[in-house]
Amino acid sequence: MLDELRAELGAVLVTDPAALDALRADKSGRISASAPLALVEAREIAHVQAAVRWASRHGIPVVPRGAGTGLAGGAIGQEGELVVSTARMTRVLEISVEDELAVVEAGVINADLTAALAPHGLWYAPDPASRAISTIGGNIATNAGGLMCVKYGVTREAVLGLKLVLADGRVLDLGRRTVKGVTGYDLTALVIGSEGTLGVVVEATLRLRPLARGEVVTVSAAFPDVEAAARASAAITASGVRPAALELLDASALEAIGELLDLDLAGRGAQLLVQTDGPAAGDEADAVLAVVRAHGGSAERAADAAEGERLFAIRRAFHPAMERRGAVLIEDVAVPRSALPAMFAAIGEIERRHGIRIPTVAHAGDGNLHPNFVVEPDAMGGHLEVPERVWAAADELFRECLRLGGTLTGEHGVGVLKRRWLRQELGDDSFELQRRIKAVFDPAGIMNPGKVF
Amino acid sequence: MLDELRAELGAVLVTDPAALDALRADKSGRISASAPLALVEAREIAHVQAAVRWASRHGIPVVPRGAGTGLAGGAIGQEGELVVSTARMTRVLEISVEDELAVVEAGVINADLTAALAPHGLWYAPDPASRAISTIGGNIATNAGGLMCVKYGVTREAVLGLKLVLADGRVLDLGRRTVKGVTGYDLTALVIGSEGTLGVVVEATLRLRPLARGEVVTVSAAFPDVEAAARASAAITASGVRPAALELLDASALEAIGELLDLDLAGRGAQLLVQTDGPAAGDEADAVLAVVRAHGGSAERAADAAEGERLFAIRRAFHPAMERRGAVLIEDVAVPRSALPAMFAAIGEIERRHGIRIPTVAHAGDGNLHPNFVVEPDAMGGHLEVPERVWAAADELFRECLRLGGTLTGEHGVGVLKRRWLRQELGDDSFELQRRIKAVFDPAGIMNPGKVF
Repeated sequence: MLDELRAELGAVLVTDPAALDALRADKSGRISASAPLALVEAREIAHVQAAVRWASRHGIPVVPRGAGTGLAGGAIGQEGELVVSTARMTRVLEISVEDELAVVEAGVINADLTAALAPHGLWYAPDPASRAISTIGGNIATNAGGLMCVKYGVTREAVLGLKLVLADGRVLDLGRRTVKGVTGYDLTALVIGSEGTLGVVVEATLRLRPLARGEVVTVSAAFPDVEAAARASAAITASGVRPAALELLDASALEAIGELLDLDLAGRGAQLLVQTDGPAAGDEADAVLAVVRAHGGSAERAADAAEGERLFAIRRAFHPAMERRGAVLIEDVAVPRSALPAMFAAIGEIERRHGIRIPTVAHAGDGNLHPNFVVEPDAMGGHLEVPERVWAAADELFRECLRLGGTLTGEHGVGVLKRRWLRQELGDDSFELQRRIKAVFDPAGIMNPGKVF
Repeated sequence: MLDELRAELGAVLVTDPAALDALRADKSGRISASAPLALVEAREIAHVQAAVRWASRHGIPVVPRGAGTGLAGGAIGQEGELVVSTARMTRVLEISVEDELAVVEAGVINADLTAALAPHGLWYAPDPASRAISTIGGNIATNAGGLMCVKYGVTREAVLGLKLVLADGRVLDLGRRTVKGVTGYDLTALVIGSEGTLGVVVEATLRLRPLARGEVVTVSAAFPDVEAAARASAAITASGVRPAALELLDASALEAIGELLDLDLAGRGAQLLVQTDGPAAGDEADAVLAVVRAHGGSAERAADAAEGERLFAIRRAFHPAMERRGAVLIEDVAVPRSALPAMFAAIGEIERRHGIRIPTVAHAGDGNLHPNFVVEPDAMGGHLEVPERVWAAADELFRECLRLGGTLTGEHGVGVLKRRWLRQELGDDSFELQRRIKAVFDPAGIMNPGKVF
């Protein structure tokens, strides 16, 4: 069977065992029990079409994949599956200054796009923490957010149109080049966040912004406890200030970061890091300082951009600090902003009840928390075997999040990690409706089966 | 059959001939040949459920309707159809200052919501010209825009979640109360702009903004011709300025407005009206002035908000000026911003070739034009019989718009007026896929048949 595909694709078809083995994993720590059948390293849309047509003919499951940096196992392959990678489709096809848009292939790395746009005075806003290594196609698959989406929007707000290769090999052109439009259903939005279950995203028309953000001012604030920091964060937003970033780190996170950076952060209850930008950046930073102090925090305002970067370095050290401690299950719940204090209180409760630490950082400005479950490195056997006791704690966390009006995943996706809670959030009717919508795109069910649903 | 529904709904079921006759029309000028079977004036979700269940049982088409202010005939009823109105579901169920959201019933008038939010320091951004008379449910059905969506986004960006009554009477809860989330497909976005073809929107969770817009500065600029004004408009956006409104009026529009307001505007080639807001409003207005002058325009900057309002009064007089001249077919094409000059040039060509006037205003900041075809009042017989020669000119306009990378409708919807061009814009594959998605929501095809598709 594979010979048939090799005849068509040549060296684009990869069956080297080491290359296939690498496809068992992504950045979630989850590893498939077995390697996939083969990998198509598409260089152009026609390669993707040939691959899915072949897979359709033979009833082979297709796993669309970008750079493999996902955090929910949505792009991992296993026995009998064909992984179709767009990571080598890296051309920026068009940059229009006048229309503030770019047309890119799916494999363009987020940070590479930023670099390509800068000389034109333009900027692509979605900035997931993975931006140096993740692709635009992958960002679209998970509706990626990031630090600055609190002010500048998530991926959905930055994508005007898409090219999608359907399971039968046809290419659908979705969306448009205009900023407004209401001709038919918004299938572009439907595909964003669909995690490869509707087709393979091969190209995107992206909405850009002018690069000029003006002055950027950073405020760093320490709090005696995380609930106070969460209350201050909610109050900052409610005050009308629009921070460009509003990050919260809890005591466990600070302790781990302190160890990594050799700083004395162990006694600190929680830290808020706030950036304001634009023409009112200074005034907004002053307003932030006032709210912080009113909530019992002690704040400092960076004297300049360099000092601001130094203050933010604590936030960027979080993931390295976690990885140093062991294998990490990174969760991604989101709650209404007003429920942040309650969600942190619930995490504290779960820590105490289960006798584990759950270091947590939050994109507090949009209520999106990343609780990290650290698993002992020696219990892992090379990958993340999440023990049932950890899932039991995570299960309580999810239930509490849903009870507070929240959602299982703010920006990472469902993948394989959160499937078992999906129906609980969506309800049976929505769940069934979504499965039937998938069947419209993919009647034979070959697109990323076992993911999301 | 109706007795069965009357037994269930009582006075909520309306069969008064005058009331039913009014449902033949909306604000598009299009009138159905016959009145619908009956009207359900729902006061609560259960009424909508009862109505669609009854309609499902008897195979009766359902036409969801709000205030009837649509501009594409999407909510007009005809013989044998049941109109289900949510116009009397007018409760604001929740306003949360902390979470910057409101939960409202579908019949709440856009401007009434604005008034209800103001005491809380909050604001709902989508501001269609119809905001004093149109409902949130109707705004959602057409993904309504408005003057300020160029900076603050259209309806899709302002809706977090929905309650949708399906054709079989079940209520679906779509979306969420959080600002981020990627659990399953984005069915909220799918329903926004679906013009009543997927179900009846009965409730919405809306994303709000802080009311404070800061200073608002108005610039008014006259140009010798419309292409120069269009080029200036595109240059304003490309300069990085984010106007809160950026409106363009062509010579025919100005002439009609001049007649209405008794002003001498007849010799003017085109007018740009620009509003900037926020902390950089003054600097942005200065940047606008510079761009305008560089493009051959003569500009004035309003000394204060009151003078700004006076300058904008010209824009607001446009629709009254058109209505005075006869029956009006209001078109709604959108093109990439850079194509605005070419689109205006094409409209001028079509005017000359067909020997008609097409007064046009544009939300120039997002490339959305409203060309108006004025039909002689005495040719109408009480409603808009668009002569084939007008449709022939409109057809050329649509084709030119699509050729320029544009779309048939920026914010009014397809309804019945633009059905015949829909497949041309979407392509056969997308068109068929959309029909199959509709069938997932509405297998028997009773939801607003004959609209959009």
